[in-house]
Amino acid sequence: MTLIDGKAVADQIKQEIAEEVAAIRAAGGKIPHLAAILVGHDGGSETYVAHKVKACEQCGFKSTLIRHENDITEDELLAEVERLNNDPDIDGFIVQLPLPKHISEQRIIEAIDYRKDVDGFHPINVGRMSIGLPCFVSATPAGIMELLRRYDIDTKGKHCVVLGRSNIVGKPVATLMMQKSEPGNATVTVCHSASKNLKEMCRQADIIIAALGQPDFVTADMVKEGAVIIDVGTTRVPDASKKSGFRLNGDVAFAEVSPKCSYITPVPGGVGPMTIVSLMRNTLLAGKKAIYK
Amino acid sequence: MTLIDGKAVADQIKQEIAEEVAAIRAAGGKIPHLAAILVGHDGGSETYVAHKVKACEQCGFKSTLIRHENDITEDELLAEVERLNNDPDIDGFIVQLPLPKHISEQRIIEAIDYRKDVDGFHPINVGRMSIGLPCFVSATPAGIMELLRRYDIDTKGKHCVVLGRSNIVGKPVATLMMQKSEPGNATVTVCHSASKNLKEMCRQADIIIAALGQPDFVTADMVKEGAVIIDVGTTRVPDASKKSGFRLNGDVAFAEVSPKCSYITPVPGGVGPMTIVSLMRNTLLAGKKAIYK
Repeated sequence: MTLIDGKAVADQIKQEIAEEVAAIRAAGGKIPHLAAILVGHDGGSETYVAHKVKACEQCGFKSTLIRHENDITEDELLAEVERLNNDPDIDGFIVQLPLPKHISEQRIIEAIDYRKDVDGFHPINVGRMSIGLPCFVSATPAGIMELLRRYDIDTKGKHCVVLGRSNIVGKPVATLMMQKSEPGNATVTVCHSASKNLKEMCRQADIIIAALGQPDFVTADMVKEGAVIIDVGTTRVPDASKKSGFRLNGDVAFAEVSPKCSYITPVPGGVGPMTIVSLMRNTLLAGKKAIYK
Repeated sequence: MTLIDGKAVADQIKQEIAEEVAAIRAAGGKIPHLAAILVGHDGGSETYVAHKVKACEQCGFKSTLIRHENDITEDELLAEVERLNNDPDIDGFIVQLPLPKHISEQRIIEAIDYRKDVDGFHPINVGRMSIGLPCFVSATPAGIMELLRRYDIDTKGKHCVVLGRSNIVGKPVATLMMQKSEPGNATVTVCHSASKNLKEMCRQADIIIAALGQPDFVTADMVKEGAVIIDVGTTRVPDASKKSGFRLNGDVAFAEVSPKCSYITPVPGGVGPMTIVSLMRNTLLAGKKAIYK
């Protein structure tokens, strides 16, 4: 069994990006600049944004964190998005989700200029990804594909079962896994809460990508000997032994499943670090205007 | 075994649309207007466009057919698209594919104003469909979903195997079948040319949607007793007994497969008529500005 070390791969990629940024800087080019809008003080969001700001530093990017309180109106937030759309120094930006209930996340996402949409959530980027055109691929699916690539895991013609059909993981990673590309080119099955044959499907899978957000959902009896397991789950579970009072728990019962696998990602330290590094890569692409002019 | 009569359903829907158009007319509203650009004289394209023009008449729409010769340049065609984008009387338009090799189909598709893209091929419509937002759904996938709806075929939690991963059928119909909607909500597997376990997958399927373009590919040994079969294939096969010299052949070996099915679409007369009627419905929605303002 090989443990897929997402943290090591992410560190490697950040170093590659930092070298490219250093070369850009030396040539007098523009340093990529990522902005993040954070509304309110949700603990998870604070942590994610802090990680993103830190990753920007490691990559040599400029970063700007814009904070708003929970009582910001939708119109005010739309105006902020518009300001960033029009700021020529900002190459890409994100609006950290979730947003307060009185604000439509979809309306905010669609207001972002797709050429600065480094989260890859705008319909144009989603559509271009599905069609197979150059675009900003959303961070978690892109990170999963990069792990498969760096570990040279054969996916062609293999049966990949995706658990979950969310817009940010399940559906896009299923699309990427079925495209005629490497990695990709897999037979892909998407299972979800309404699936009747989910366990049988998992037992047939050469690759399982678990993105349900249900701690320890995938158990040993659901996994074929030699399968590749990508665990996207990161549920906060109360844990008195941790200083924070919680631990991150994956969708896979790691202790019992890992002995059966050929490859498996741990939680934390698997897909999570790759998600942030994919955002960094999109920011680099935005800064270089490599996808859109 | 129930034969799914796509022609009858399509006629019924065209009548429903015609009634709605008559009511719009009576109320002094704007009659929906579809334009089609046809480049060259490809036999298949001529037939499809003629069917679309005829369907417009049956629905009470205005239609405009714009012909260009094969030597039209990409820039000239882009200018024509721009003219239609800006013509306030045209509610929706299509550019009949395929185009001559010197013209980038993707560039033309992306030049169409997505609010008039009744074929649903523009990245914005593809992306919105994937996310689950209101949009123009491309005609063949929409037609398949409508057949399932009108025949009240239960799809929730069922295993649907889609054969083919094209941008116009395989990928979008897979997305629609997995969405949390009715019909939909199915466990969906997408198989394609690189799949190693295609036959086994088909044998497990409650629903098979065959869109490979390979005549008689799906044989009786690949089909479970009681399965629902949707045949999207329409390959022209030489046939001396036909006046035209060819017949349309589906992806399913109908004679041997149909006795095993609960429902099956014939070719012709199954999905084909539904494709055109879905275009009509998108045109009606465009005319009413029901999706985009």
